[in-house]
Amino acid sequence: MSQPQFKKIVIFGVGLIGGSFALALRKAGVVEEVVGFGRSAGNLQQAKELGIIDRIGQDVAAEVRDADLVLLATPVGQMAELMSRIALHLGGQTLITDGGSTKSDVVRDAYAQLGGKVAQFVPAHPIAGAEQSGAAAAGADLYMGKKVILTPLPENSPQAVARVQAAWEECGANVHRLTHTEHDAVFAAVSHLPHLLSFALVHDLAQRDNRDVLLSFAASGFRDFTRIAASSPEMWRDICLANREALLKELQIYIAELNKMSGALASGDAAQLEQTFHTARELRAGWTEQ
Amino acid sequence: MSQPQFKKIVIFGVGLIGGSFALALRKAGVVEEVVGFGRSAGNLQQAKELGIIDRIGQDVAAEVRDADLVLLATPVGQMAELMSRIALHLGGQTLITDGGSTKSDVVRDAYAQLGGKVAQFVPAHPIAGAEQSGAAAAGADLYMGKKVILTPLPENSPQAVARVQAAWEECGANVHRLTHTEHDAVFAAVSHLPHLLSFALVHDLAQRDNRDVLLSFAASGFRDFTRIAASSPEMWRDICLANREALLKELQIYIAELNKMSGALASGDAAQLEQTFHTARELRAGWTEQ
Repeated sequence: MSQPQFKKIVIFGVGLIGGSFALALRKAGVVEEVVGFGRSAGNLQQAKELGIIDRIGQDVAAEVRDADLVLLATPVGQMAELMSRIALHLGGQTLITDGGSTKSDVVRDAYAQLGGKVAQFVPAHPIAGAEQSGAAAAGADLYMGKKVILTPLPENSPQAVARVQAAWEECGANVHRLTHTEHDAVFAAVSHLPHLLSFALVHDLAQRDNRDVLLSFAASGFRDFTRIAASSPEMWRDICLANREALLKELQIYIAELNKMSGALASGDAAQLEQTFHTARELRAGWTEQ
Repeated sequence: MSQPQFKKIVIFGVGLIGGSFALALRKAGVVEEVVGFGRSAGNLQQAKELGIIDRIGQDVAAEVRDADLVLLATPVGQMAELMSRIALHLGGQTLITDGGSTKSDVVRDAYAQLGGKVAQFVPAHPIAGAEQSGAAAAGADLYMGKKVILTPLPENSPQAVARVQAAWEECGANVHRLTHTEHDAVFAAVSHLPHLLSFALVHDLAQRDNRDVLLSFAASGFRDFTRIAASSPEMWRDICLANREALLKELQIYIAELNKMSGALASGDAAQLEQTFHTARELRAGWTEQ
């Protein structure tokens, strides 16, 4: 029997992201004990019954002192407070990673709250579905073949980064590295902006007196385009605000693009419209999710 | 054996739309003979081999003179010329319908080209997938359970409308009626605008030096939002131009919506963002394609 790489892991927020991390590491046989903290006693109890965690944590200070790894898997808006609660008590060998969808804000929080222990924090963003939530939605295979982006800090030692990377790889993930600024710019463009645009279209239709007639004739194009408009309003409010600088920049570029298309339409510029659509189609038809 | 309701049907453009119409009416046993015209000899030959049409038409004048029903299933940009070719030769009992995705432009063409015979034209828009094309893509079940919108003209007799409606219903479609103006306003909002927005996002990314990095991190939200950006550039150029007044109006409303969201983001107005997302999510989550 191989020696577990992690004797004890502490997870804050035992939902889809945190619970799946625990289950995956258990399945890989690399963790001995998992302790869970969270705001919902019912969810924690369920996590225990489902075998996701061994114990429900009672004393944050005591649990993080001898943990090998702490995962922060709460909404990003709660991380600053959480960091301030654990900062003083972190053991010298305890590494921290997180599951937040935005990184610059989490990194800013880490510098502010963790102080001299910021080197122990290796930020991460697992790109895995968030349509369900809660411990009951967690699964050992959630990260299998999925991307996890690490955005290491200059203060991190190579060993710390390697160990956190190894944990995510044990979950089955393909780990990539970006700076937190690169990360937020990339996700503003390919994730946050599309969500905002989809919400905006449906919100626009929702204001209309004839919305029922409009929706009764909507078909598969509308269905796919607006699927992400059924995402969690609270989660997306937080993501948009957390990444608002990069998102605002993308939004302005996009509005400029729409104004150009509006001009082409108004002047009946068939060639420009076709060229725009053609360029888009070439890129999209040649793309497959990796 | 029941008497066919249509002794002879002539189809211009034997592709997905035209070919499926023929196959569906054959399957329903309500047509005796189908004659096909088109620009591609190879496609017509294939349509004949596949049993979609009985004959490849040679003489437009002779064929439309004694037809019960003519279907115009070419791209909308070609309909004016086609109407001008058949107008003089249409028999007094020959009805015409079409499969165009926009209606105001087709109706305008009909008044201009068909003259006194415009009463014989009952415009239609079948809401059925257009991802494939050509006779080989046609199927007898394409319209089963799908919507077909009729936009009758004031000149149409109730009998003419009923007979064209019956033909689409024999294909398995659920027939709805709108005016051509209503039709174009509805589809500008729920179909043409989303296509334009999806093309615009992908075109925007295609301009960037780091597009490969951006696309390598795109996931399922991006995939669904941009699926329609792989649609035919030529077809969507024509649809956008054909319906440009209604589409420009929608585009301006949408840009105003984005400017409002940009303001909320810039000022960090969490409540307004959440309210916008919440309203959108409520509507979208409660909607199912009919």
